[in-house]
Amino acid sequence: MAGNSFGDLFRITTFGESHGAAIGVIIDGCPPNISVDESFIQSELDKRRPGQSKITTQRKESDTARILSGVFEGKTTGTPVAMVIPNEDQRSKDYSHIKDKYRPSHADYTYQMKYGIRDYRGGGRSSARETAARVAAGAVAKSFLAQAGIRIFAHVSGVGKIEAPNLASDDLDELLHIRESNIVRCADPATANEMIDFIDGIRKAGDTVGGRISAIVQNVPVGLGEPVFDKLHADLAKAMMSINAVHGFEYGSGFAGSEMQGSEHNDIFVNPAHNAAGLKTLTNFSGGIQGGISNGMEITFRVAFKPVATIMRSQQTVNEAGETTEITGKGRHDPCVVPRAVIIVEAMAALVIADHLLRNRIYDKT
Amino acid sequence: MAGNSFGDLFRITTFGESHGAAIGVIIDGCPPNISVDESFIQSELDKRRPGQSKITTQRKESDTARILSGVFEGKTTGTPVAMVIPNEDQRSKDYSHIKDKYRPSHADYTYQMKYGIRDYRGGGRSSARETAARVAAGAVAKSFLAQAGIRIFAHVSGVGKIEAPNLASDDLDELLHIRESNIVRCADPATANEMIDFIDGIRKAGDTVGGRISAIVQNVPVGLGEPVFDKLHADLAKAMMSINAVHGFEYGSGFAGSEMQGSEHNDIFVNPAHNAAGLKTLTNFSGGIQGGISNGMEITFRVAFKPVATIMRSQQTVNEAGETTEITGKGRHDPCVVPRAVIIVEAMAALVIADHLLRNRIYDKT
Amino acid sequence: MAGNSFGDLFRITTFGESHGAAIGVIIDGCPPNISVDESFIQSELDKRRPGQSKITTQRKESDTARILSGVFEGKTTGTPVAMVIPNEDQRSKDYSHIKDKYRPSHADYTYQMKYGIRDYRGGGRSSARETAARVAAGAVAKSFLAQAGIRIFAHVSGVGKIEAPNLASDDLDELLHIRESNIVRCADPATANEMIDFIDGIRKAGDTVGGRISAIVQNVPVGLGEPVFDKLHADLAKAMMSINAVHGFEYGSGFAGSEMQGSEHNDIFVNPAHNAAGLKTLTNFSGGIQGGISNGMEITFRVAFKPVATIMRSQQTVNEAGETTEITGKGRHDPCVVPRAVIIVEAMAALVIADHLLRNRIYDKT
Amino acid sequence: MAGNSFGDLFRITTFGESHGAAIGVIIDGCPPNISVDESFIQSELDKRRPGQSKITTQRKESDTARILSGVFEGKTTGTPVAMVIPNEDQRSKDYSHIKDKYRPSHADYTYQMKYGIRDYRGGGRSSARETAARVAAGAVAKSFLAQAGIRIFAHVSGVGKIEAPNLASDDLDELLHIRESNIVRCADPATANEMIDFIDGIRKAGDTVGGRISAIVQNVPVGLGEPVFDKLHADLAKAMMSINAVHGFEYGSGFAGSEMQGSEHNDIFVNPAHNAAGLKTLTNFSGGIQGGISNGMEITFRVAFKPVATIMRSQQTVNEAGETTEITGKGRHDPCVVPRAVIIVEAMAALVIADHLLRNRIYDKT
Repeated sequence: MAGNSFGDLFRITTFGESHGAAIGVIIDGCPPNISVDESFIQSELDKRRPGQSKITTQRKESDTARILSGVFEGKTTGTPVAMVIPNEDQRSKDYSHIKDKYRPSHADYTYQMKYGIRDYRGGGRSSARETAARVAAGAVAKSFLAQAGIRIFAHVSGVGKIEAPNLASDDLDELLHIRESNIVRCADPATANEMIDFIDGIRKAGDTVGGRISAIVQNVPVGLGEPVFDKLHADLAKAMMSINAVHGFEYGSGFAGSEMQGSEHNDIFVNPAHNAAGLKTLTNFSGGIQGGISNGMEITFRVAFKPVATIMRSQQTVNEAGETTEITGKGRHDPCVVPRAVIIVEAMAALVIADHLLRNRIYDKT
Repeated sequence: MAGNSFGDLFRITTFGESHGAAIGVIIDGCPPNISVDESFIQSELDKRRPGQSKITTQRKESDTARILSGVFEGKTTGTPVAMVIPNEDQRSKDYSHIKDKYRPSHADYTYQMKYGIRDYRGGGRSSARETAARVAAGAVAKSFLAQAGIRIFAHVSGVGKIEAPNLASDDLDELLHIRESNIVRCADPATANEMIDFIDGIRKAGDTVGGRISAIVQNVPVGLGEPVFDKLHADLAKAMMSINAVHGFEYGSGFAGSEMQGSEHNDIFVNPAHNAAGLKTLTNFSGGIQGGISNGMEITFRVAFKPVATIMRSQQTVNEAGETTEITGKGRHDPCVVPRAVIIVEAMAALVIADHLLRNRIYDKT
Repeated sequence: MAGNSFGDLFRITTFGESHGAAIGVIIDGCPPNISVDESFIQSELDKRRPGQSKITTQRKESDTARILSGVFEGKTTGTPVAMVIPNEDQRSKDYSHIKDKYRPSHADYTYQMKYGIRDYRGGGRSSARETAARVAAGAVAKSFLAQAGIRIFAHVSGVGKIEAPNLASDDLDELLHIRESNIVRCADPATANEMIDFIDGIRKAGDTVGGRISAIVQNVPVGLGEPVFDKLHADLAKAMMSINAVHGFEYGSGFAGSEMQGSEHNDIFVNPAHNAAGLKTLTNFSGGIQGGISNGMEITFRVAFKPVATIMRSQQTVNEAGETTEITGKGRHDPCVVPRAVIIVEAMAALVIADHLLRNRIYDKT
Repeated sequence: MAGNSFGDLFRITTFGESHGAAIGVIIDGCPPNISVDESFIQSELDKRRPGQSKITTQRKESDTARILSGVFEGKTTGTPVAMVIPNEDQRSKDYSHIKDKYRPSHADYTYQMKYGIRDYRGGGRSSARETAARVAAGAVAKSFLAQAGIRIFAHVSGVGKIEAPNLASDDLDELLHIRESNIVRCADPATANEMIDFIDGIRKAGDTVGGRISAIVQNVPVGLGEPVFDKLHADLAKAMMSINAVHGFEYGSGFAGSEMQGSEHNDIFVNPAHNAAGLKTLTNFSGGIQGGISNGMEITFRVAFKPVATIMRSQQTVNEAGETTEITGKGRHDPCVVPRAVIIVEAMAALVIADHLLRNRIYDKT
């Protein structure tokens, strides 16, 4: 059973290789009558697009999504929404030198062993280029969520050992403005500058570095999540871990919470609205999710990305014949993926929330 | 779409509430001709069973699984394997005091809001008692994996701020022996003693504490994992995050890896066997998984558990009417879940690996 | 991927062999707050139960379903509903003579070849005894549908070459009364008598005979069915074809419709309610389904059952060693399955409609 | 849960509307290293293409499929195969007269009620144009099956009351040659002529007529099919019933078998090969499937198509406002769908068999 679909009711299937004709996605299960604005989809893709700044890859792709179906006169019809993004700048010859070599910490070896064949150009299907399709689908999911007032915000909260302070605000418009004012997409301006300088130095040294993205989801209604396996945070975890280079996920108190005691960790319920449907908690170590179900508080989670594997230095490796050889990164690569991954994290979160919003519709308590 | 099934080809569906008649599981997709040994299933359940030691809950349950179908003359037949574990020690009256109160950091509130009804006795379906069904299914999965030589080992690597050193050995028999020699299930004897003393103090103080479990999987063949969404580590993440009280997951270098640089993080391929199918890497920051597919190295991951929410102290909360009230833990609860959760982590890992072993069978490269 | 689950949102998984400890079912996705009446479940099981009359098998099974989970104080809670039906009258020794022989037109040979092992007692998993689990689940589905006013009625419309006239009424209470007044479950009394005499003669001759069941579903809202693959009639077809011994399915005009011309076959819309949501059609060759979606008219379909394979006569066959041998039916078998299959057809239809009722909830046109 | 995917392991998802930009399909789960020949895909599409003869619609579509992904140097790579077929001859203005009218026995009314919006041009998603995507995917499935020696053959066995005799041969090359020598695609030349004359007369009268397609699958290995719900014939039934205009399905003895007695219907096993893996049956009323699992004999089934709903005559109907109105067919429509549907039946059968071939791989009896 191949694994190119995500979601159960709001379900996407992506396709495409880095240097094939195109990448794209089908959304099956998008509710009808959702307004789809192509300029919004494009603005989302532009945040993931290569070539944005000195700290991202210089590959040139306009990343223009074309809608082939499922939208009629600006609205979804309830039928599958297919979107295609042609590949333009396919410098496949950049990859001829790795045709039969297994790049360290890449997927060359495992793809070859699993499938017995691989499209080696630019990593083929294993390339993070596939995530553009996720961003396009995420833009549609966000349009659906916007109708319910749900908003998602992610930013770069860590690069290497640099860590941003907690968010200074819960005003997403304000945070978004700060984030988009700097090329590393950190919502704290001072930390952003520090991160940019650090990444630029890493880049000049021909190296790469990992980082972390923190995200919040506001205005999620109580009730999303399907115990016992499809807990909301379990599906968020899978969504995030499926993004290229992700090595860790935590929500709410996360790993730090595992060092705490119950008496300090428990979130005490209060009722500011004197309405059981609108309970709040004094703290939010639960990250907005209890028993796998959203409790109406802000959902919070954090994602860890390993350093990019392609470095501009010579490394030892092995070729398909099993012989030891050397390899040096060519092509156009990011020194740090997190600035471009912010929008991917948001897209995957939007897809998870959209899916669970639909899944929760089957409960009719009236 | 309800969420009580896990896995695609080796698929389990669990049922049952904490104080209902029984809990249980159906495995659909277990291959035929697997030897199923009821005493092995029981020995696994005994590791999760309540009442094992002074640092676990005193609820008395023999947790005896009865196989109802799918096994004939000691072997699986390829038809669904159903197992039922009756509930015995249901002191439901322990819970009458919480019938209409929302316990802090429990699932009472979210279940009530989602479903409009809940079995409040012992947390109903949200109780970790459900995980006994997972352990029974995991035992069958382990029997299947054993035929392929695959072994899984988990142990308690952290309690509160106490952290165990790295494993001193990769000999699982030896590690298992050490682990089962202490009641906290840590593979380092000295750390185990420290943890036990700490948990016992926490218990006496009427409090609880979180912890961490580390796991390894040995002898996994190259090729398990289904990009781009069903990456092996993404499915492991979902499996672990679906266990009660889990707040974080990381594999390979994890969060620490996000602080590293590519030049130090890349795992260099070597070929000790002079055989491309048996490549090794000098380091294993990839945690045995590259591009979402197992690479033949040891798989490593770590799971963070929050402190148990039920504490033996008075806490403020809100009742169903929206009124502020107080609540004090009664019943029989664990001061720290990780000693009993070790076997649950192993069971869920076994289910993920078994599922992907079957999923990988569809690739016939001959 | 094993195939023991049915339905997507209202999803059942059955288990159990003819002569194992028990058979049973888990329903995952049953909405909460549905009243579940055990006596209704039992009354449904009684209609499928063996030993009802001279024209059914004499195996004695009380077929008592026990609910293990998912129901609290008489109502579903939204968690999995597990039901178990113990096997009582397991005369396994009746089957020792066929242990290594492949019975003609049974599943002995195919199960042995597929799985490499089989529980030969009573046909094991391939026995129609499994359908008792479907009936129990169908009873819960019917309870859910009853809340929406939806009713299902099936009856024996054909045995051998005997064919019942069209239904004389659309009053289901009246039809049900007639049907349950005769042991063959035909809603036309005169035809029923003819069928009973015919089946009794067949039985005395040690032979068996096939038959047909016709069904209608009333009060289905407009909108159920999910094009392009999960059309309502496509899911009904799969449901019916999955019942033991079924060889054919048709809905609306069916095979006869394929002989007609468009000008006579088209169903003309009229608007008696002067309300577009309540259109009717003058004829109903569409069988209540257009483009795979229910149109609010009565849904009609028909199912063909082959003759039971076990006959009380000597037949030539082959054993596991590949040698030609003889076999004579023993055990207790039905001369014609349709009288007992009526309730199975209803159960499967209820499961399909319940599933699509939930699937249609994701469309929120408000 | 939307329904635009089919298959579990060899899984397709189709998209596109009759008059949108394009239609297409993603295949997820196609095994790697399958040779994909674009000219073969095209030759299959040409058999479904409109405008082939005087008895098919005159819409002009070249129906050229472009492969966007999943194929590298002529072979599948195990990643998703996406194919797009642009729409060319979209005379949408032909449909402005039906914009707000519900055509009799079409899906206009049900789509509008279900989704609250519809692309009325050419029937939008409900148009049989969607089946071109199925044929493209079916061609890839056939390429996969060809490697296993499995072949599928369908032909028009009935039009109106005209019925072809049983196939005169089991040589598929010969049958294919006869079928493709006449425009109605019947494997019996004399009946073909009769059918063509009849359809041509129907067409001149502005009317339409239904028909039947019979199919066989040769060289299917023993063991395909997953009881108890995903029986091979149950999945074939769903596949066929999901094709536009299909009203009935039967396999093996079908409806006629339900009139027979067990003593004549049972298929007697013989062992010409003196090898239990290669048993044959003297008759094949089972249609090559026993207990839902293929038994190695030829698989046989038959599909009934209703007459096309669009006729060139005036009909009464109702508009969106609920008013009675008249409608007359315009556009370019088929007088009888079965000649073009033959290749769709083959495609869907190929998809089912391919899916089950993969599903059966999880059983490793070695």
